[in-house]
Amino acid sequence: MKVSVIGATGRVGKAAAFSLAEESVVSEVVLVSREKSLSQVQGEALDMNDAMAAKDIRVSITPTSNFEDISDSKIVVITSGVPRTSEMTRMDVAVPNAKIVAEYARLVAKHAPESIILVITNPVDIMTYVAYKASGFPRSRVIGLGNHLDSLRLKNLIAKHFNIHVSEIHTRIIGEHGDHMVLLLSSTSIGGILVKDFPQYQSFDVETIVDKVKNAGSYVINKKGATEYGPAFAISNTVKTIINDEKRILTLTTYLDGEIYGVGDVCLGVPVKLGINGVERIIGVKMNDKELEDFITAAKTVKKAKDEIMATLEGEINLSK
Amino acid sequence: MKVSVIGATGRVGKAAAFSLAEESVVSEVVLVSREKSLSQVQGEALDMNDAMAAKDIRVSITPTSNFEDISDSKIVVITSGVPRTSEMTRMDVAVPNAKIVAEYARLVAKHAPESIILVITNPVDIMTYVAYKASGFPRSRVIGLGNHLDSLRLKNLIAKHFNIHVSEIHTRIIGEHGDHMVLLLSSTSIGGILVKDFPQYQSFDVETIVDKVKNAGSYVINKKGATEYGPAFAISNTVKTIINDEKRILTLTTYLDGEIYGVGDVCLGVPVKLGINGVERIIGVKMNDKELEDFITAAKTVKKAKDEIMATLEGEINLSK
Amino acid sequence: MKVSVIGATGRVGKAAAFSLAEESVVSEVVLVSREKSLSQVQGEALDMNDAMAAKDIRVSITPTSNFEDISDSKIVVITSGVPRTSEMTRMDVAVPNAKIVAEYARLVAKHAPESIILVITNPVDIMTYVAYKASGFPRSRVIGLGNHLDSLRLKNLIAKHFNIHVSEIHTRIIGEHGDHMVLLLSSTSIGGILVKDFPQYQSFDVETIVDKVKNAGSYVINKKGATEYGPAFAISNTVKTIINDEKRILTLTTYLDGEIYGVGDVCLGVPVKLGINGVERIIGVKMNDKELEDFITAAKTVKKAKDEIMATLEGEINLSK
Amino acid sequence: MKVSVIGATGRVGKAAAFSLAEESVVSEVVLVSREKSLSQVQGEALDMNDAMAAKDIRVSITPTSNFEDISDSKIVVITSGVPRTSEMTRMDVAVPNAKIVAEYARLVAKHAPESIILVITNPVDIMTYVAYKASGFPRSRVIGLGNHLDSLRLKNLIAKHFNIHVSEIHTRIIGEHGDHMVLLLSSTSIGGILVKDFPQYQSFDVETIVDKVKNAGSYVINKKGATEYGPAFAISNTVKTIINDEKRILTLTTYLDGEIYGVGDVCLGVPVKLGINGVERIIGVKMNDKELEDFITAAKTVKKAKDEIMATLEGEINLSK
Repeated sequence: MKVSVIGATGRVGKAAAFSLAEESVVSEVVLVSREKSLSQVQGEALDMNDAMAAKDIRVSITPTSNFEDISDSKIVVITSGVPRTSEMTRMDVAVPNAKIVAEYARLVAKHAPESIILVITNPVDIMTYVAYKASGFPRSRVIGLGNHLDSLRLKNLIAKHFNIHVSEIHTRIIGEHGDHMVLLLSSTSIGGILVKDFPQYQSFDVETIVDKVKNAGSYVINKKGATEYGPAFAISNTVKTIINDEKRILTLTTYLDGEIYGVGDVCLGVPVKLGINGVERIIGVKMNDKELEDFITAAKTVKKAKDEIMATLEGEINLSK
Repeated sequence: MKVSVIGATGRVGKAAAFSLAEESVVSEVVLVSREKSLSQVQGEALDMNDAMAAKDIRVSITPTSNFEDISDSKIVVITSGVPRTSEMTRMDVAVPNAKIVAEYARLVAKHAPESIILVITNPVDIMTYVAYKASGFPRSRVIGLGNHLDSLRLKNLIAKHFNIHVSEIHTRIIGEHGDHMVLLLSSTSIGGILVKDFPQYQSFDVETIVDKVKNAGSYVINKKGATEYGPAFAISNTVKTIINDEKRILTLTTYLDGEIYGVGDVCLGVPVKLGINGVERIIGVKMNDKELEDFITAAKTVKKAKDEIMATLEGEINLSK
Repeated sequence: MKVSVIGATGRVGKAAAFSLAEESVVSEVVLVSREKSLSQVQGEALDMNDAMAAKDIRVSITPTSNFEDISDSKIVVITSGVPRTSEMTRMDVAVPNAKIVAEYARLVAKHAPESIILVITNPVDIMTYVAYKASGFPRSRVIGLGNHLDSLRLKNLIAKHFNIHVSEIHTRIIGEHGDHMVLLLSSTSIGGILVKDFPQYQSFDVETIVDKVKNAGSYVINKKGATEYGPAFAISNTVKTIINDEKRILTLTTYLDGEIYGVGDVCLGVPVKLGINGVERIIGVKMNDKELEDFITAAKTVKKAKDEIMATLEGEINLSK
Repeated sequence: MKVSVIGATGRVGKAAAFSLAEESVVSEVVLVSREKSLSQVQGEALDMNDAMAAKDIRVSITPTSNFEDISDSKIVVITSGVPRTSEMTRMDVAVPNAKIVAEYARLVAKHAPESIILVITNPVDIMTYVAYKASGFPRSRVIGLGNHLDSLRLKNLIAKHFNIHVSEIHTRIIGEHGDHMVLLLSSTSIGGILVKDFPQYQSFDVETIVDKVKNAGSYVINKKGATEYGPAFAISNTVKTIINDEKRILTLTTYLDGEIYGVGDVCLGVPVKLGINGVERIIGVKMNDKELEDFITAAKTVKKAKDEIMATLEGEINLSK
């Protein structure tokens, strides 16, 4: 299976490409960059090839600035965007990134019309909307990474607090990949047993945990300048789930059309069943009153921002194919 | 890490040994048989060695009928017992098997005093009790496979019905590994979302499912003469969890001392947190009235049978060290 | 990728099917048996399904006695045959097995015309010839396991003698999978360094080693009644090499047309480059005089036996499509 | 098993730490940095933790600037050094790096006296000598990565030219990890068959290949600013070989005492048998006249440079413990 990464000179892009090259289900990785960065991706490709020899992995790695090379990709990962510094919010980078994502989504639609687009660029909920509209793809084939990474971070924190293997933790963060993320505490279980039934729940401070998850990205950026490994493995994990048709339930950004409490015309993070065709189904979740209120707030916030971005874009770019 | 399998000429024993040899965390597997079957386990060992070469796996496989060879084992798996035909119940084989298990448990205590005993022999809840008493080990180091395999079978059936990856299914069968198994439907979730909230729950027939799980072992025995692959992977999975200190929550047979609704002096299948020291903690579960009633029935049934077996054994064997 | 195993109630057949189900590159395994054994393969399938749940593996396992179910298989493994007891040679079972293999090869050609046939049934060099003729497939798509397993056994023995990891050993046994196997000592290296340059070569007794490899199968059969694990992993290893298009050099039985010292119209074990299309190329080997002489003897012996078998078959079965 | 990486804010250091965290045999990774970079390694650790959750990997990752945290490490990887730009040779960085490596080697000897030191810092052959002297460790426990990476690069190029799986290629680059590397063409085989016996050998241009390998590091640095993935996987592969006691033959830098054609008192890349105790044995190699001449030149060159560096160091640092 062939996977292409657009923006392969960025820190997330190249770490993602490297993680994908290592996956046994991926036989071909295309590293796409702007022409001026072609030399750099050529270096990345050679460096990755050296690495693969060390693990006896046979995979084709192609550096390119020519979009024709992405043809027949099963999945195209869009990571390009203006870099976000620790003082910037995900929204500060929205307008420039929207133009970049719209341009690339259309190129993907042209050169890999049967592919699934996985959007990483922030603010990811809005960028997924942009890619959805610009590509003209059915919504099942335009997915944003969004809350999957937040959910993984939350799982990690819970696993540590309860000292239980991370695979036993089932929990969800939905809504916006940003300030308006919603922790579904009511659907959080450990080994299938509700988290509230564990004795250590007494010392489990939900507010602190949510704050940690919200600030995890900024914290890492603040400390080391960028996130890279976390998003990289979250991406390769999502790609593997699709290619293997695993039918797992991940929390990803998808276009909503009323499935969750009537919310529509916006892309948000919700649990979806993921398989070879992308989003096979949106999984309904029951929320308590507080969770629902927060989710509605997230929806309104993202929708408002999305409308502004789309209005700005429309002036410059023709989003209808 | 060294793992020994007692009863390595039986179908479960040899399939388990083979699965263990393949695990990267296991560096040494000892195949123990009665002296009259030594030739057969020598053949098994050579056959397994051929196989390991095909996968570039480096592991030491030792066939023996000498218990001194199990010294320093981290885990000793007891699979020996009178074979159960499809007309026999797990209880029909209880008395002869209790003698076998008691004998081997004492030999394990003598030659591998720091090991963890994993009991496979049926009826496993009673045999775990016998091994616990005969070995004199702390209860954390005497574990029965029991409901772990039932729970895996149930996960499989649910995964198929809902068409979701099996790793997303969290469910438990507790109580007896036999007719009195209890499905904890109230703690069954898919991707962390309660099973009752899925639309396909309407067509999910719990009674039929429980019957299928209850009869799965007999069904396989009826069809092919014995179970082998299912128990084998359930065993290697349990061993891996222990050796890697994974701290997962598996449903295994352990000695209860009042932790679950006051039930005590009996070994039953319950959720336990499993790590390098064996059973680190029994996880309390909330049951609805029907589930609790069934669990109490299971406890009474197993306890009664256990008392009979122990009384028979006492006459013949001195169980106190 | 779909793989079918014909003869899935035999010990090699079912162990191979189980190993294949575990491979991540295999998404579907079909267990084919005679109709009278359908019940048994149904039991095998359920038992394997239980096992896969323990390792979170998602694979479809279909028991059947209907050859239509093998359609679209990438590879079909033929393991069926009269069981060989320890007193019997591989040749004693040749005539009955040839009829079985011819019948199945034609059914494969009918129902899975694009598949690759992997022949396990003994005497495998002759059975590969029978399958080649009966299927009408190009020779690149009819392969016998043969010397691959012998070579693995040899690698194991060398790894043990020199105490070096088995993956460092490169050696070949070619010719007949039987008495006339030829050890290519002149092409045997450890970590790329000729075996003769190692100090422990002084105590390396080639004759004893060859005898051990020649008798390994009989030894295992003698001890445990049948070989199963060794062939099973050798099969899954070969299947993985094909499906992943790994282009490794394995020693497999293939139809020769003069490539090796002019030998032709016979199937023998030789080094081949194996990929997604089966045998991509026969790799020429240099032999010393003794090795060549033995290889010619192997060719003559197999050819003579093959001619007899084919003559017997022709009378009964029309081998031309 | 615990592994520490010194210099974990460098590009090779952090990529190596990430690769090690992913290995199942590694249970604890310590990221060591100078105190002023502590904040950055804290960011790296959190980023890596996010990643591990995505793959269900349970590993402890500790960022620190306190050498006491490396105690009980099985292996300590030293990657620290002045960064090498594309205009600089490996020798240009020798003096400053020697001071750094000497300091760290002594700290390792103090806080992890039973560990194995793996030196990555360039010029690696000299730095291995420095670490050997400064640590006072037996030579079996001070290893340089050196020609292992060169050999991997060469394997890659050969695999591509012959279109054969990289695991089939056995070849060696020995001598200096630098201009005086020596390709052992006479011991190069594919699938155990001498490379000269393959038809594509006619078009195999050795000079060009050697030049490519020699310049691979500079090429990558030139293109992307640094090497990272190649060294990272070469490191994790070496660590895995040690921890699993795999007894593979890798080409690593080790202290020679006359084993190879009488060369001594210098560290060079040669084939070694690697296991749980580090370098278990130096493997003698036969060279043709040209290869031997080049090897002797490499030895003289490295020895001369080493003597200069050691003389400079002696003035400033007391290398005797």
